[in-house]
Amino acid sequence: MAHLLTACCSVNPSPTTKTYLKLPSRCSSIGRTSVTFQSCRPLYRSSISVRKKSIKPYQINATAASIGQDVENRLQPGSHQILDNGNSSKQKRVMVIGGDGYCGWATALHLSNKNYEVAIVDNLVRRLFDHQLGLDSLTPISSIHNRVRCWKSLTGKTIQLHIGDICDFEFLTEAFKSFEPDAVVHFGEQRSAPYSMIDRSRAIFTQHNNVIGTLNVLFAIKEFSEECHLVKLGTMGEYGTPNIDIEEGYITITHNGRTDTLPYPKQASSFYHLSKVHDSNNIAFTCKAWGIRATDLNQGVVYGVKTDETEMHEELCNRFDYDGVFGTALNRFCVQAAVGHPLTVYGKGGQTRGYLDIRDTVQCVELAIANPAKRGEFRVFNQFTEQFSVNDLARLVTKAGKKLGLDVETISVPNPRVEAEEHYYNAKHTKLIELGLKPHLLSDSLLDSLLNFAIEYKDRVDVKQIMPSVSWKKIGVKPLTVPA
Amino acid sequence: MAHLLTACCSVNPSPTTKTYLKLPSRCSSIGRTSVTFQSCRPLYRSSISVRKKSIKPYQINATAASIGQDVENRLQPGSHQILDNGNSSKQKRVMVIGGDGYCGWATALHLSNKNYEVAIVDNLVRRLFDHQLGLDSLTPISSIHNRVRCWKSLTGKTIQLHIGDICDFEFLTEAFKSFEPDAVVHFGEQRSAPYSMIDRSRAIFTQHNNVIGTLNVLFAIKEFSEECHLVKLGTMGEYGTPNIDIEEGYITITHNGRTDTLPYPKQASSFYHLSKVHDSNNIAFTCKAWGIRATDLNQGVVYGVKTDETEMHEELCNRFDYDGVFGTALNRFCVQAAVGHPLTVYGKGGQTRGYLDIRDTVQCVELAIANPAKRGEFRVFNQFTEQFSVNDLARLVTKAGKKLGLDVETISVPNPRVEAEEHYYNAKHTKLIELGLKPHLLSDSLLDSLLNFAIEYKDRVDVKQIMPSVSWKKIGVKPLTVPA
Repeated sequence: MAHLLTACCSVNPSPTTKTYLKLPSRCSSIGRTSVTFQSCRPLYRSSISVRKKSIKPYQINATAASIGQDVENRLQPGSHQILDNGNSSKQKRVMVIGGDGYCGWATALHLSNKNYEVAIVDNLVRRLFDHQLGLDSLTPISSIHNRVRCWKSLTGKTIQLHIGDICDFEFLTEAFKSFEPDAVVHFGEQRSAPYSMIDRSRAIFTQHNNVIGTLNVLFAIKEFSEECHLVKLGTMGEYGTPNIDIEEGYITITHNGRTDTLPYPKQASSFYHLSKVHDSNNIAFTCKAWGIRATDLNQGVVYGVKTDETEMHEELCNRFDYDGVFGTALNRFCVQAAVGHPLTVYGKGGQTRGYLDIRDTVQCVELAIANPAKRGEFRVFNQFTEQFSVNDLARLVTKAGKKLGLDVETISVPNPRVEAEEHYYNAKHTKLIELGLKPHLLSDSLLDSLLNFAIEYKDRVDVKQIMPSVSWKKIGVKPLTVPA
Repeated sequence: MAHLLTACCSVNPSPTTKTYLKLPSRCSSIGRTSVTFQSCRPLYRSSISVRKKSIKPYQINATAASIGQDVENRLQPGSHQILDNGNSSKQKRVMVIGGDGYCGWATALHLSNKNYEVAIVDNLVRRLFDHQLGLDSLTPISSIHNRVRCWKSLTGKTIQLHIGDICDFEFLTEAFKSFEPDAVVHFGEQRSAPYSMIDRSRAIFTQHNNVIGTLNVLFAIKEFSEECHLVKLGTMGEYGTPNIDIEEGYITITHNGRTDTLPYPKQASSFYHLSKVHDSNNIAFTCKAWGIRATDLNQGVVYGVKTDETEMHEELCNRFDYDGVFGTALNRFCVQAAVGHPLTVYGKGGQTRGYLDIRDTVQCVELAIANPAKRGEFRVFNQFTEQFSVNDLARLVTKAGKKLGLDVETISVPNPRVEAEEHYYNAKHTKLIELGLKPHLLSDSLLDSLLNFAIEYKDRVDVKQIMPSVSWKKIGVKPLTVPA
């Protein structure tokens, strides 16, 4: 973990006279800077406080430090917090479950920057998965504690931390009672299809963790925060690849002379994707039975790493997965191009999916929160901005690589998944646009910057992690350990 | 439990000279006979053997006794076991998970009677639920151990017993490896919608138990019995009450000029029903990904208690639930009519569902086993024979009650569920008919016999159990205990 303990944002131990240490605002110097964690530890240690009455080992607030000059221009005074049903006097309180993850961390920072009151709830198990599978983010990432301290130090904004497992209802109860959220953004699930297909125990873990965790969140909302809006991360993968247009959650069917609008049929293709379908069904029921207000964000494949907020300081840098388990297609291709590894297209490469920039993920979540579902409404948004086939992406990365002087080769590898490799795909995605989403489309310049980003970190690439290691057909009951 | 320990089938302790004790072949004398369990214990104790190499505390085989004369004419030489792909030389081996329950016990006996080799897998937790909730079957039921011993004694047929939890994969592995099933009939789930809506912990239990148990069964089939046919009990409640005709599992949709056949949209209305939807989705995926062969039996509401086999002896008598948690509409109405309690219609009573006689349950399961799904096929049958609204049933019971001199009143009670009380309902159910199902429709004579059955046992009715005690809207996080 030593490489994660990098420079922090303030070196002056006096709480009243702190000055911001001017480090490059991008993460590129991480691992090379000579300023070490030890130098700022005294400040941080003195600045941890436990909220409210009792000592809770899993809950801390970061309360440190002042704002650095060089980041002030990135800080965006909030506008959305006043959209809370006309109640402009109160900051909207948003609990981000899974706020230490790829999408969750970017979202937590974005919402905090927009003046939402943010609490991260996370058991940090995603970091454990990396250790257990011998994987690592391309980017060095700081501990969640350092992340929120740094954010506080840079912006003066507090992000609460509740470290614990939402499958533990006692823990979740405490988090709900103490934070009293107006909205819960729920990223807190095992989110990798290959992970769920490693072996029986990971398949079971994925479905148990995701389904039971979400059930607990629903019960917590019913019991402690009835008006709270659940913004739940689903996946476009819930729909599979039907031979008809994919609608946003519902489809109107005329059959034998009668018509009804029904949940869009789902055809998920991994235990992970199935867990999201189970969640959607459970949430829809509680909206109807209990009047829960919920938005299901069926998100496409996310690419990119930088958001306005994570760029403010290297210690805020987001994770970037390129491995065969957690890495998604475009991010992985960029890393492969950077290190001279052939782009690995699974099978025929006609697999088409919706994609979006991580800057649009945070925008979409903010739009959903700012425009909440009604009581009893189960609202489904398809959260992506463009469709690409895997072959499309390989072509785009090859072209962009050439511009940078990279010789990019593409190979087809046996598809480890069970999926159609050539199929019709046309998915609607207008509802978030109607709410105001301004998409960051995949342009040449973005691809350039993604590739350059991968090149910058290419010394950290472990080529062994790139190839697919998990087979949909070969999954068995024996627990698998990744060889050294 | 003393009332459950009643007469057994053989009183002669010598294994070679046993004679069948002529008791009434119906359960009506249970609790009144003077023959006690103790009198036959020595025989049974001596006849328990542990199968194969090692001592397994959860697995016993009953190996006792000869066949009584008076039941020989009920025994049906098997015909279906020879339908196993033309392999007539080998008995088909069927594992009945949940074989101690209402449908499971009737099915296990029926299949054994038809010369299938049967193993019951059950953790008996259904009996624990009764203890915990202060409920009891209208009929006194024997222990599963006495049940299979009695069956052996009557018929010479062995039903293996594997007592344990399918959520425990180690246990399930042992059961699979030792029994090597050709088919698995999976009734082994928490099967009550109200139970799943009692409190958070029961909701979580229901989804965990049902979803994880079924995942384990799927993994066991993949790992140990790849050709094994899964016959899974689903429920018509998975579909909800759409305003269009309900098809059997799939619907062909034409949308924006394109057509596809997709899983029929589901709208389940309790955590229990949702768990069955989750199961269906998980099973469908494994059929596609692993080539599992599966039949999902979306069963309607089952009524009745007697099957050819359970009628052979009082100790084989099936359970009959009339309480607000496990009792289903028609069975409950018969008990209410028998004790002079008004029939309790929930809300407007227009709730329409598919119904079937328990004799058709066992027939349907047998037909599914005898005509297995193909490798990779996920086949869905709607398993019911007639549709009724709750008001229809109340009218039928009122009319039948009058013929028997009962003054039957009907009242509407506030609906504890969240469901449409007036709706369109037209569900297809032709696939099992095409396979040869000969339905036992709800005739006047059947209702007479059901009512007479309820009257026979009316002294055992606990009126406190009749009214609905579980509210879909009031479910909370506090664990509920039923008051004494």
